[in-house]
Amino acid sequence: MKVRGQHFRTIWLKPDDERVVRLIDQRFLPYRFVVEEIRSVAKMATAIREMHVRGAGLIGASAAYGMYLATLEAAASHAFDQHLTSAAAQLKATRPTAVNLSWAIERQLNEIAAGNTAEEKVALALDIARLIAAEDEEHCRMIGQHGLSLLWQIARRKTTRLVNVLTHCNAGWLAFVDHGSATAPIYAAHESGLPVHVWVAETRPRNQGSKLTAWELGEQGVPHTVIADSAAGHLMQRGEVDLVIVGTDRTTYTGDVANKIGTYLKALAAKDNNIPFYVALPSSSIDWEMREGLKEIPIEERSGEEVQHADGWLEGEQVAVRLTPVQSPAANYGFDITPSHLVTGLITERGVCSANEKGIRSLFPERAP
Amino acid sequence: MKVRGQHFRTIWLKPDDERVVRLIDQRFLPYRFVVEEIRSVAKMATAIREMHVRGAGLIGASAAYGMYLATLEAAASHAFDQHLTSAAAQLKATRPTAVNLSWAIERQLNEIAAGNTAEEKVALALDIARLIAAEDEEHCRMIGQHGLSLLWQIARRKTTRLVNVLTHCNAGWLAFVDHGSATAPIYAAHESGLPVHVWVAETRPRNQGSKLTAWELGEQGVPHTVIADSAAGHLMQRGEVDLVIVGTDRTTYTGDVANKIGTYLKALAAKDNNIPFYVALPSSSIDWEMREGLKEIPIEERSGEEVQHADGWLEGEQVAVRLTPVQSPAANYGFDITPSHLVTGLITERGVCSANEKGIRSLFPERAP
Repeated sequence: MKVRGQHFRTIWLKPDDERVVRLIDQRFLPYRFVVEEIRSVAKMATAIREMHVRGAGLIGASAAYGMYLATLEAAASHAFDQHLTSAAAQLKATRPTAVNLSWAIERQLNEIAAGNTAEEKVALALDIARLIAAEDEEHCRMIGQHGLSLLWQIARRKTTRLVNVLTHCNAGWLAFVDHGSATAPIYAAHESGLPVHVWVAETRPRNQGSKLTAWELGEQGVPHTVIADSAAGHLMQRGEVDLVIVGTDRTTYTGDVANKIGTYLKALAAKDNNIPFYVALPSSSIDWEMREGLKEIPIEERSGEEVQHADGWLEGEQVAVRLTPVQSPAANYGFDITPSHLVTGLITERGVCSANEKGIRSLFPERAP
Repeated sequence: MKVRGQHFRTIWLKPDDERVVRLIDQRFLPYRFVVEEIRSVAKMATAIREMHVRGAGLIGASAAYGMYLATLEAAASHAFDQHLTSAAAQLKATRPTAVNLSWAIERQLNEIAAGNTAEEKVALALDIARLIAAEDEEHCRMIGQHGLSLLWQIARRKTTRLVNVLTHCNAGWLAFVDHGSATAPIYAAHESGLPVHVWVAETRPRNQGSKLTAWELGEQGVPHTVIADSAAGHLMQRGEVDLVIVGTDRTTYTGDVANKIGTYLKALAAKDNNIPFYVALPSSSIDWEMREGLKEIPIEERSGEEVQHADGWLEGEQVAVRLTPVQSPAANYGFDITPSHLVTGLITERGVCSANEKGIRSLFPERAP
């Protein structure tokens, strides 16, 4: 998507040196646009763990490029397989909730195994990393087209035609390689001339909504308004929301949705006000092994420091201000589970389906058990 | 309650000069404990509007003392009644949602009218201001006793005896003259040796939870943990919350509850997880005129600046950091409405009742229509 009018993806290879991966270091947005160069699997693990990059699809693509960097390192070592196994473990340990992480790493390990020489393995890893990124981009684009049909259905029922979408956290192009999942239908609507306005929930404690989603939408010229996370229910009660679209870090094959903490509360409010609640996801975010989201999906617990502080911009500097008394502890859960019965539908690259096993398998019949 | 071990109320008269009202200026908590002296109705209106004081009961008591200051000014003027009417209007215009505001002002106007001379009117206004403050304190103390019975009922069913209460915003002693409404049962439990732990929702955008409630609880030695507002549902899903207790700025005689934005979402999550959801309130917060909360209760809209920034503490200074891109607008609704059917019960100074007209009138039969 566009940054100051110029097209960017979130991750790409350095044009004149393909041993270097470039990515947008999102920790400084919306204040500074920083591109980071990653030259080792250790640095890629840090970038994922410390959230220079985040979001389901981008974590997957970053891990895929991380595995490519691992093959470069392995080729220069005396124990290729050992280095690769260790790199895979290092990358897998960075974030527990996003299933795209392990999905991308496993895919790389399987493909790399087909190479006979170190050179072949490096070439395969590069191909697969590029493929994963390209698929992510294409799947998000398709999600946009399928979601756009939904938005038009809603627009046709309204005299104003203006569709008010509420979203949480950032499932935008910054969370993927391009387009985003939850934002893809919004960008498609905006480009096709369907008037759309987005309520952006700020998403404490890291404020990915007010920092990343608001910035993205602003750069593409999409009208939006930032709200406190707590305001979502009130807006729905007042008829100010036509539909909710969020992303997901992992969705079970039965339709339970792990997403940024607070998603569940928005789903409850949507249900209580008869507002459609959609989850947009490429199939790489479906966990085909897990049946019960609440019991099985691991929920990341992060440092309480994030809740005790707010990170923002003050006189040209990025600083964290303390919000709580020094003695007060804080707990910081990264994600929650929205049970499938609260989800109106899933918007995937193959179309929209019900959030249950039957609906999901109807779009992905090759995943029959 | 205690501040550094010393007993305080939120508002009181200066001991050696009763023409001066003192109050805790809450804008600087938890970083600095500032006592402000108020000598005019205009300054009191500013203190309420700019939230030096806030919270249902304290807004009422502050308005009552403001009306007393108004009689002092009126007595020195040539048009007593005119000054008093104008002062009442000025105070009423400060905040739209808390019903205690108009309740206290009307009560003062009615009582002051019984005085024959300016001196009598001043004396009456002082008596009533003191009475309103004393009633508020006593009602909160009684709420604590009735709520304590509820907490014991829950504790007896648990092997650990530890009761986990979740609260939102600050309905603590800082929101009243003393004890608080939602916190009164917590303080009563803590004093009586019943182990209690409080999940404190931070309450963006002004963070009254992480700033005021966490500070209060810390000063009284009550174990607590600050969480993002979005985390409430996840904690309930995981069985980490035994009950929710919140306050209210206005509750209809049918049991619809206006309270800090985000309360509605917590009530939905409590319902979804079969967790009791109580609202603690002195009867001064009941609006005996309003039947339908969603249609009738005015919801304060504040500046978007509060959502665009976070106010906190940095190297000994209180500063506001910017969270959003400069171009992104923000909306800031102060309150939402929790429909009565989501409320397990109301904890009042006369006991616990159902959140409906029958239940409320059973405790307050003198308010029969």
